[in-house]
Amino acid sequence: MASASTNPNPQRVSTMSGGRCRVAIENVRPEIDGGRFPAKRVVGERVIVEGDIFADGHDAIAAMLLYRNEGESDWHERVMQPLVNDRWRGEFQVDRIGNYYYTVTAWVNLFESWRRGFAKKVEAGQDVTVDRLAGAELAELGAQRAAGKDRESLEQFAAALRSKATGAGESGPDPRLAALMEKYQERRHAAVYDKQLVVNVDRAKARFGTWYEMFPRSCAAQEGKHGTLQDCIARLPYVASMGFDVLYLPPIHPIGYSFRKGKNNNFAASPEDVGSPWAIGAKEGGHKSIHPKLGTLEDFKRLVTKAKESGMEIALDIAYQCTPDHPYVKEHPQWFRKRPDGSVQYAENPPKKYQDIYPLDFETDDWRALWEELRSIILFWAEQGVRIFRVDNPHTKSFLFWQWVIPEVKKSYPDAIFLAEAFTRPKVMYRLAKVGFSQSYTYFAWRNTKAELTEYFTELTRTEVADFLRPNLWPNTPDILTEYLQFGGRPAFMARLVLAATLGASYGIYGPAFELCENTARDPGSEEYLNSEKYEIRHWDWDRADSLKEFIGMINRIRRDNPALRGDRGLLFHNVDNPELICFSKRTDDLTNVIVVVVNLDPHHIQSGWVELPMEDLGLDPHQPFQMHELLTDARYLWHGPKSYLELAPQSVPAHVFRVRHRIRREQDFDYFL
Amino acid sequence: MASASTNPNPQRVSTMSGGRCRVAIENVRPEIDGGRFPAKRVVGERVIVEGDIFADGHDAIAAMLLYRNEGESDWHERVMQPLVNDRWRGEFQVDRIGNYYYTVTAWVNLFESWRRGFAKKVEAGQDVTVDRLAGAELAELGAQRAAGKDRESLEQFAAALRSKATGAGESGPDPRLAALMEKYQERRHAAVYDKQLVVNVDRAKARFGTWYEMFPRSCAAQEGKHGTLQDCIARLPYVASMGFDVLYLPPIHPIGYSFRKGKNNNFAASPEDVGSPWAIGAKEGGHKSIHPKLGTLEDFKRLVTKAKESGMEIALDIAYQCTPDHPYVKEHPQWFRKRPDGSVQYAENPPKKYQDIYPLDFETDDWRALWEELRSIILFWAEQGVRIFRVDNPHTKSFLFWQWVIPEVKKSYPDAIFLAEAFTRPKVMYRLAKVGFSQSYTYFAWRNTKAELTEYFTELTRTEVADFLRPNLWPNTPDILTEYLQFGGRPAFMARLVLAATLGASYGIYGPAFELCENTARDPGSEEYLNSEKYEIRHWDWDRADSLKEFIGMINRIRRDNPALRGDRGLLFHNVDNPELICFSKRTDDLTNVIVVVVNLDPHHIQSGWVELPMEDLGLDPHQPFQMHELLTDARYLWHGPKSYLELAPQSVPAHVFRVRHRIRREQDFDYFL
Repeated sequence: MASASTNPNPQRVSTMSGGRCRVAIENVRPEIDGGRFPAKRVVGERVIVEGDIFADGHDAIAAMLLYRNEGESDWHERVMQPLVNDRWRGEFQVDRIGNYYYTVTAWVNLFESWRRGFAKKVEAGQDVTVDRLAGAELAELGAQRAAGKDRESLEQFAAALRSKATGAGESGPDPRLAALMEKYQERRHAAVYDKQLVVNVDRAKARFGTWYEMFPRSCAAQEGKHGTLQDCIARLPYVASMGFDVLYLPPIHPIGYSFRKGKNNNFAASPEDVGSPWAIGAKEGGHKSIHPKLGTLEDFKRLVTKAKESGMEIALDIAYQCTPDHPYVKEHPQWFRKRPDGSVQYAENPPKKYQDIYPLDFETDDWRALWEELRSIILFWAEQGVRIFRVDNPHTKSFLFWQWVIPEVKKSYPDAIFLAEAFTRPKVMYRLAKVGFSQSYTYFAWRNTKAELTEYFTELTRTEVADFLRPNLWPNTPDILTEYLQFGGRPAFMARLVLAATLGASYGIYGPAFELCENTARDPGSEEYLNSEKYEIRHWDWDRADSLKEFIGMINRIRRDNPALRGDRGLLFHNVDNPELICFSKRTDDLTNVIVVVVNLDPHHIQSGWVELPMEDLGLDPHQPFQMHELLTDARYLWHGPKSYLELAPQSVPAHVFRVRHRIRREQDFDYFL
Repeated sequence: MASASTNPNPQRVSTMSGGRCRVAIENVRPEIDGGRFPAKRVVGERVIVEGDIFADGHDAIAAMLLYRNEGESDWHERVMQPLVNDRWRGEFQVDRIGNYYYTVTAWVNLFESWRRGFAKKVEAGQDVTVDRLAGAELAELGAQRAAGKDRESLEQFAAALRSKATGAGESGPDPRLAALMEKYQERRHAAVYDKQLVVNVDRAKARFGTWYEMFPRSCAAQEGKHGTLQDCIARLPYVASMGFDVLYLPPIHPIGYSFRKGKNNNFAASPEDVGSPWAIGAKEGGHKSIHPKLGTLEDFKRLVTKAKESGMEIALDIAYQCTPDHPYVKEHPQWFRKRPDGSVQYAENPPKKYQDIYPLDFETDDWRALWEELRSIILFWAEQGVRIFRVDNPHTKSFLFWQWVIPEVKKSYPDAIFLAEAFTRPKVMYRLAKVGFSQSYTYFAWRNTKAELTEYFTELTRTEVADFLRPNLWPNTPDILTEYLQFGGRPAFMARLVLAATLGASYGIYGPAFELCENTARDPGSEEYLNSEKYEIRHWDWDRADSLKEFIGMINRIRRDNPALRGDRGLLFHNVDNPELICFSKRTDDLTNVIVVVVNLDPHHIQSGWVELPMEDLGLDPHQPFQMHELLTDARYLWHGPKSYLELAPQSVPAHVFRVRHRIRREQDFDYFL
């Protein structure tokens, strides 16, 4: 039978070899849920593929990683290298948005098996006359697969092996022959992994983004007025000055009147109450309309354009739910559940009732039309220039719908990014990431101690989760004012900001509540803001002297200047002998950028301790002193050895953000030292 | 569309629901390599199936485990129960040899969702008029799925819910209604796991067996004579008296003459040398022939019968390799590799040469005929009554061959058992278990310290490995005389015997070398026996006074009497504050049989320490004293609390084997205490 081509169609190869295939390929990673879901990367990232690869017996094997972009029909190849314990590794880089496919092929390496045996026999002084002929036969077969100069060389090597006089000598075969044979390997009976795995590639912002959430209606310059999209435009320089690149707006659609909630979520709304932006739909329109008081579609498009000019993108909120006044309720009554009395089923979590909200029924017989309409909402806003969608409570809509709609949107807008706001059980959160969400809100807000942060971010960045879920960290949201912030005051806000901005390549804050350290809860034990913007218009003193805006700007500049902070894979936690101090580092693959962060988690007391760094993991020579450049203060420290002492006072800045400078000047650097 | 039947065809259900299926099923276990290989069980065992199962939103769900024997077309069902973190569990029992299929289906549980909400609303004192109607509708739908009395009852419940007067009352729905609705659930839009997984069921001996390996040619009663199969028959009472139930014989075929090895593996054999039984094939025949000096096929069949009468099975060695004198070499030269000089390629591991052995070439173009011939060897011996095959070096034959031949043999002999002798790298060893071997030799022989034993047996019994690999533990083999045995003497043999017999439901010894504590190595640093039976006939003093045969018999009786020792899943290691003492327990699922073993790993010194038992895991009341029945000495100890002191002297018996007696008599048991 014919041997495999050098650019095999995996399916064909595995069939052709029949029972003679001797190599096993197992446990290939990344492989999400047995290949049911794609892994995730952004443009420019590497995909490191590993697998357990072995054959029966003692023959040498060779393994090749195959990959191709969805637009290509031929596979690219990358040689895989053995690690330990029959694990092999290869990698490729993804340069285009969309899907890449990859799989692994491996075969018994006849020449290498021969070469090893030959070398050992030569070393043992054994007669290798027949072995030399076997090598010549392999080289001749190699020559048949080669052309031009390579073919000539292989023929010469074969001839040399056959002729004892001019032979390869008893010192083992020529390394140039081995190199040529590696190039023209005989791949007969190659094994091919039985799955073609997928990696879905997004643009870089899916991984690295700095988000700011702001209620447009609170943006009016004048107190008591309903803010507009025009007012948002006026706010852009403020947001941009802090270094944010995504401006996320809660829903901007008409708000329902029926069962409208009053201030502080009061059931009895007065006629002046503005209602919750998430209560979408009224006589003025639904999900494709803009609240008349915010402005027009033209205003919105202007906002998108102006934001872009300021280096920002607008992210919109996709909240698939309707008030009783939403046009869908009349136009598509079959999309909602009916109660036995004929009324529409409102949202409830007994005994709580949300009569202002009608959930869509994803079990409706008319699901196809429902799905298409929901897709059309995203496409409508994409047409207006929006590419980032923060999706409200995706875990209350069906997984299959997301699995369909996200690729559907990407067909027309490959650069679309979807952030899942699913504060729910871990496996549900992970499933949403698997079915296609580009990013996910996390439990970060509630991970406050060193042990909690270490365990959670180890799970997110150093397990399989890192292959399908990209965390987006929020120290606060309009729904979440944690007790840590309520009781920790300004030092707590600073500590949580540093943690979010350095633990997460993507993070966001809900402002200006955050930078103004707004921290009064509605009730004791509640995480709701008092006088929450969800139910009323607020007028903020944006330029208050004690605002954290400068600090935030500094942190965001550090993020932008240091590639280590633009990804999550390089995260490592380090020992500190004080449970209130947390220390971690992030690194680029090539170690040219290494950031070490230390945060005092205690917002009340000065804390000190000894930090212990794994010198070699951070690219440091354990026998040389090194410089730690503190980026918040621009101070520079000389450290030596793995252990260093630190002290952090919460009332000034409760964190250090160091850039490791690998080498410091010494006497040898002096011009005429030698 | 129609709803799912109560006995769904998984494929059909998942297609029918289209986009309306809201439940996700992930991470189902057991699932070996994504379902590529079957899990293993023996008749009578349970298969515990777990999966992550969840829906969007807050509705209750229900999950069902589906399973069927390969001979059945309908699925059986077992209700799955939620554990924590969206993990669900169900189980079924396997009662027949062969394959069982299993998968999982799950759906939104409409009635339970309603029931929970209704109960909460009643508790909160809310108006439930409409909810009662909703419940009635569900009960009416349930009635349509029911028949007879159940249907009537459901109709009555529905009517009661509709009529406030006779209603279910504001105390929540009647539990009998819930029970009926559980029975007649609406399974619309059910999710079905996308794989049908397989569990392969063997007979009980695949899990629990006690093996004795013996060279027939060393069994002659008279020194200097070549032992025969007839002599083996005479040895059966001896082997049976020690409680063994599998008698494994090294190859019994004609031994080659070319390059025959002499005593102690000497290259220069004398004409009297008998050669290695693993050098198979001569003019007298090959793998289907019996060495003329051992006897005839009739003798062999008599041995099989007599062994059975003594409660034992004969296990044969399948060693797929040929000497230069094997008939295959002439009849099927294409099954061997050729060297460039036209000679047949002998086995080599450069610079070592094994010129007495020609390996079969699994890459031959004639592989189909080769496979069939190799299958016919096993079938030939199966026809003579052999059902257990110990396979020599299966890792030097192709995985695909084993994956084919083992099920092929089982088609005709479903009770066949295959033990893989693959002392090779872990992933290769595991692959052989996955492709079908019933049992596997392990690294047990080289795991001597507490840390090594704990780590290794935790991996074998408490990870996924336990689902596909059944360990068979051998403290020695003709190839393996460990340094622990060489230097530890009799106490080492006793300790290793207890460890093998209690850590492994299957274990074996190579005797009589083992019971006679033969421990002289050929060379320092070698694990080869001096004067190994592999190359010469030995004459043993089987009844030497210091033989361990009585001790072995006692251990094997304890194994037979205690079901906890007949499986490997109940293994737990316990703390002892002395690294030379190891303590572990084995339990039956129902905790009616709990065995605690303590072994002194130091063959030279008395060792003592405090053992710490997890009382509740062993079914013990932490507030009551309990009795520990020492089965080797029949002594009984009263222990109380988790910690107990122990002392073990290697020169007497270096181990305790306790049976836990859960309750001891107290004053309350006295007839007239009350």
